[in-house]
Amino acid sequence: MTGPLNVSEFEAIARERLDLPVYDYYAGGSDDEVTLRENIEAFRRMRLKYRVLVDVSERDLRTTLLGTPLTMPIILAPTALHRMAHPDGESATARAAASMGTIMTLSTISSVALEEVAQAAPDGPRWFQLYHFHDRARTEELVARAVAANYGAIVLTVDAPVLGRREKDLRHPFMPPDGVVAVHLLGDPRTVTTGDNPIAVALNQPSVNWTDLAWLRGLSDLPLLIKGVVRADDAKRAIDEGCAGVWMSNHGGRQLDTSIATADAVADVVDAVDGRGAVIVDGGIRRGTDVLKALALGADAVAIGRPQLWGLAADGENGVRAVLEMLRDELSTAMALAGCPTLGDIDRDLLA
Amino acid sequence: MTGPLNVSEFEAIARERLDLPVYDYYAGGSDDEVTLRENIEAFRRMRLKYRVLVDVSERDLRTTLLGTPLTMPIILAPTALHRMAHPDGESATARAAASMGTIMTLSTISSVALEEVAQAAPDGPRWFQLYHFHDRARTEELVARAVAANYGAIVLTVDAPVLGRREKDLRHPFMPPDGVVAVHLLGDPRTVTTGDNPIAVALNQPSVNWTDLAWLRGLSDLPLLIKGVVRADDAKRAIDEGCAGVWMSNHGGRQLDTSIATADAVADVVDAVDGRGAVIVDGGIRRGTDVLKALALGADAVAIGRPQLWGLAADGENGVRAVLEMLRDELSTAMALAGCPTLGDIDRDLLA
Amino acid sequence: MTGPLNVSEFEAIARERLDLPVYDYYAGGSDDEVTLRENIEAFRRMRLKYRVLVDVSERDLRTTLLGTPLTMPIILAPTALHRMAHPDGESATARAAASMGTIMTLSTISSVALEEVAQAAPDGPRWFQLYHFHDRARTEELVARAVAANYGAIVLTVDAPVLGRREKDLRHPFMPPDGVVAVHLLGDPRTVTTGDNPIAVALNQPSVNWTDLAWLRGLSDLPLLIKGVVRADDAKRAIDEGCAGVWMSNHGGRQLDTSIATADAVADVVDAVDGRGAVIVDGGIRRGTDVLKALALGADAVAIGRPQLWGLAADGENGVRAVLEMLRDELSTAMALAGCPTLGDIDRDLLA
Amino acid sequence: MTGPLNVSEFEAIARERLDLPVYDYYAGGSDDEVTLRENIEAFRRMRLKYRVLVDVSERDLRTTLLGTPLTMPIILAPTALHRMAHPDGESATARAAASMGTIMTLSTISSVALEEVAQAAPDGPRWFQLYHFHDRARTEELVARAVAANYGAIVLTVDAPVLGRREKDLRHPFMPPDGVVAVHLLGDPRTVTTGDNPIAVALNQPSVNWTDLAWLRGLSDLPLLIKGVVRADDAKRAIDEGCAGVWMSNHGGRQLDTSIATADAVADVVDAVDGRGAVIVDGGIRRGTDVLKALALGADAVAIGRPQLWGLAADGENGVRAVLEMLRDELSTAMALAGCPTLGDIDRDLLA
Repeated sequence: MTGPLNVSEFEAIARERLDLPVYDYYAGGSDDEVTLRENIEAFRRMRLKYRVLVDVSERDLRTTLLGTPLTMPIILAPTALHRMAHPDGESATARAAASMGTIMTLSTISSVALEEVAQAAPDGPRWFQLYHFHDRARTEELVARAVAANYGAIVLTVDAPVLGRREKDLRHPFMPPDGVVAVHLLGDPRTVTTGDNPIAVALNQPSVNWTDLAWLRGLSDLPLLIKGVVRADDAKRAIDEGCAGVWMSNHGGRQLDTSIATADAVADVVDAVDGRGAVIVDGGIRRGTDVLKALALGADAVAIGRPQLWGLAADGENGVRAVLEMLRDELSTAMALAGCPTLGDIDRDLLA
Repeated sequence: MTGPLNVSEFEAIARERLDLPVYDYYAGGSDDEVTLRENIEAFRRMRLKYRVLVDVSERDLRTTLLGTPLTMPIILAPTALHRMAHPDGESATARAAASMGTIMTLSTISSVALEEVAQAAPDGPRWFQLYHFHDRARTEELVARAVAANYGAIVLTVDAPVLGRREKDLRHPFMPPDGVVAVHLLGDPRTVTTGDNPIAVALNQPSVNWTDLAWLRGLSDLPLLIKGVVRADDAKRAIDEGCAGVWMSNHGGRQLDTSIATADAVADVVDAVDGRGAVIVDGGIRRGTDVLKALALGADAVAIGRPQLWGLAADGENGVRAVLEMLRDELSTAMALAGCPTLGDIDRDLLA
Repeated sequence: MTGPLNVSEFEAIARERLDLPVYDYYAGGSDDEVTLRENIEAFRRMRLKYRVLVDVSERDLRTTLLGTPLTMPIILAPTALHRMAHPDGESATARAAASMGTIMTLSTISSVALEEVAQAAPDGPRWFQLYHFHDRARTEELVARAVAANYGAIVLTVDAPVLGRREKDLRHPFMPPDGVVAVHLLGDPRTVTTGDNPIAVALNQPSVNWTDLAWLRGLSDLPLLIKGVVRADDAKRAIDEGCAGVWMSNHGGRQLDTSIATADAVADVVDAVDGRGAVIVDGGIRRGTDVLKALALGADAVAIGRPQLWGLAADGENGVRAVLEMLRDELSTAMALAGCPTLGDIDRDLLA
Repeated sequence: MTGPLNVSEFEAIARERLDLPVYDYYAGGSDDEVTLRENIEAFRRMRLKYRVLVDVSERDLRTTLLGTPLTMPIILAPTALHRMAHPDGESATARAAASMGTIMTLSTISSVALEEVAQAAPDGPRWFQLYHFHDRARTEELVARAVAANYGAIVLTVDAPVLGRREKDLRHPFMPPDGVVAVHLLGDPRTVTTGDNPIAVALNQPSVNWTDLAWLRGLSDLPLLIKGVVRADDAKRAIDEGCAGVWMSNHGGRQLDTSIATADAVADVVDAVDGRGAVIVDGGIRRGTDVLKALALGADAVAIGRPQLWGLAADGENGVRAVLEMLRDELSTAMALAGCPTLGDIDRDLLA
């Protein structure tokens, strides 16, 4: 017997351990889950034309993202309510990311307070994902807390003005299990006054637009990224309006179904950003070769969502670390086999 | 337990309730049912490049079709013999459409007389679908009755000069169940004098051509649309010859098998019509994102055929309304997620 | 209960009636049967853009092929040893073709002598398919007999210089059943002196080339076609060298596996022939829409191989006739639905 | 009952005879085995446009590869540890290749010493596949031994700077069975001092680069090929730097998963080499038509890996010979059916 050999095997373990509504909440997508599948397939369809006879005895996976040095171009995407996966919740995840030398992006829908997460891994790089609240004061307060707790960037989610229709969550209505609380949402009046999914109601703010972005940028000196971009024109505008980067995502296939797979959108967005900001990509990253392909298309880093949760459910902090190690090692192997000792050697010419 | 979450689940309920010959008559297509499947797949294959940071807090789905204000760009396509699905038949459907603020298109092969349908929902917008009868006098009479009963448009079906070969209907020969009568066909001599499918025999009129169209236009002041168009040249000619619009359709995959999916034909037809008439599309609409895509390609509205029947079979008037609400809500969500607060914001640039 | 509704249902009946080795001999293809499947799929993948509002009350399916008037552009391809399918063998097939007003192409590997077949349907149009024998005298004799028996054309098979590897026939070695004899091969020395498939050994003549074609043309005044063409240059040369036409075929996927599907090769061949000779297409015709597509690509007629055998196995002469009627009716329906009252109305513009 | 009819049936026999870890070691690929499958599918997808009326009574499959006359353009690729498949190991394979008049390429990871293999088939053409060892002296020594034993070329593997992740080997860790030894690796210090796959550790040498190639060329007068090339620029450079040819391969889908299928890379590489060196292709060759396609794309020869092992496992020397005969006969048949009596007649125009 061996431990899980790949991300899929981590998912299989997590599926066994988690209650079905929780597993489905994490794993599911919207509508017919076309984009959920396409995110994975789009990377898998791309073919690599590797180089030979390059000295790859030392691979250097280090990079710098918005000034933060990382051991690898793989960071953690924001995902909700980690205590559903493991009692240690986001603290475990933060420790794992810190120990691996990469960024954890904490979700607004965290089950552990952002300060406590910061304390769990004080030296680790961390970003804060933000939903723009109905109540501007709450948004302001959350940003201030993130600044105070030394989060290094604000990542505003922009692909969820309303909640995507995730039918699995409607079939066995998703409610956080007893004792798991979306701590940053406590006290939001809409959280308690509606029978609908309280998280969704509190967070989705359909009026948010480019004007609010300017206001948000003024709230702190932290670099701001927008997450959920798939279009070149949106990416260009974000940079033009002062964003430090764009985070390409379709929310893991959980929002607009039949959205373009992020893999298929990277090249255009990278060309539009044209080096003036960071480009991060999530959605469908399950193998080191997926990371290699995203970088070949021009992304600066990738982010993983569900894989971290499978690791967390399987073995807490150790599990998250194991997933990160696995993808790092797979990327390192892929770079060796592609003839790319450094990230700088990875370019579009690798793609058939 | 929840109610049906999507159109497919409505179909599952209908399949349980209906006798197999009736279900097969509604659900089946011609020959190998290639086009039946393709209609759905063609929409599903299209990928959306949604926009972000647009204020979508208010979505406006209202439109005007041939002068008729609608609450949404989704109307009911003509389908046969609603009393096979529910005792209230077309009256229930008409009440549902009216209550939702959209058009019901009554089929010539109605199981309730057009006047009775009009009375069931006197204020609802309604169109009348016409088969050109062998006997011109009958055609004339039907149009006159439709005018008298305040139908707002005549929709001439042109993709059924002969009946497509629907093998399911041949395997367990389709005959309307006892008590369900194609009321507008009563008295047609061919209905009674042949052993073949009486509806088909009465209706299919293979000689109908552009000349008859001119004659038809002269029968009333109602706007005339032709339904069953998939070609740009046919669409252009229809407009040139005075039609108020074209209704793109391949009869739901029930006529010429391996016809092009309507989704794949929209762009060319829209370009040919060039704004000089309305373009309506049916075939394969099962999700709000399908509606969004049809509109993005340039259609003015979509029509749904089978989904209304699944709703009718599941719960009569309420079921039809539930299906319309479902698609309206899905479209509203899709518009929000695509960054399109109004129908005017939906254009081809959304499609990858 | 109804009779078979389509060609597939005829095949199902035949599969039940025939001994497995015989069914497999008829149904099988070479190697991995890629081309066998592709022939069918290539037609099925093509999409039709039908025309509307054309008077199609009278469809005229008549055509003339090499001067022979036919009731429809569907003829019978040569297939081997009909007595394996039905005791009446090729005589039954000939009677069926004659009664339907179309051509039967008799195979050299007939189980009934060509004169007897001619007598069975003296007024029916018939062509003779020829394998170029090792022994030129035998070839000469067969052509002379065909001339004497009023066959209207010689169809030289050119895609079988050696026998394709049909693994099903090797698994349960194919030998004609007792009493079924390839009558035109009797007395061929190689038929009796080898343990291999006697038919194959007698017939495959790998040296046959363009020079032999000239010699063959000199043997009679009958028009000569070559059967087995998929290339434009070969087609052009055949016409240049005096052939009356080319018969596009890949031998029903029984010779070179992974050959191009004939459907995918028609347009180029038609363009190369440029009206200077007839173009006949076989391979994958199972529906009237397949015929329509072949004609739309520019073929003058299609030929059916296996479908006639399924009909013959199911019900002898009546079965062959039923298959021909079925395809004729399907073609007529397809022409009506495509807006093509005559064969002359069918052109490439119908294909998406 | 008949013997195996094709390569797949040989594999089925081998699968039954071999212990699962051995079968999996031979059959498996890296990661998700995408490239393993794609190698086969890419050839299968290509369509042939065969020529007719060419005299193919004599097919000449002979070719000359780097000055060595061969009876066919099919050689044996290096594969590891033949004694796992059959007690006679590489000696049996060598005798089979020699008796068939083609090249055996002996792997560095041989289970029989290169001298003993040479003695087993002294007159057969043989090449030696080389891994560049960590210890240059060992590399030097192996090349010297290959020269002394009359190997005709050195084939340096360049697509394995590190070992691809073959999960099947990790699930039931692969270790050579008792008594099967990688004889050329004996005494390598890293072979004995690590718990990891000893073969991998000894061989993978990630620093090897173009500079080492120059050094290697100086070690002997033998022609040098690099094996594992999929890129045109790498191929061109190899020739520019004095290689006698390039061996296109992705290591049978065992190294970088989602690499381009070799079939899809041939044309570009052939164009880049432009006749200045030999081009050999392995990966996915299972049928004579695959060989034909590789040659049509411009390859000089193909190499088979797994198929030889299936033959060896099934019946030792006779089994390897049977596989070679089978592919030779299939190629001969394919050439006949494609209208190509000689290898020189095979060109890209055969491909659709």
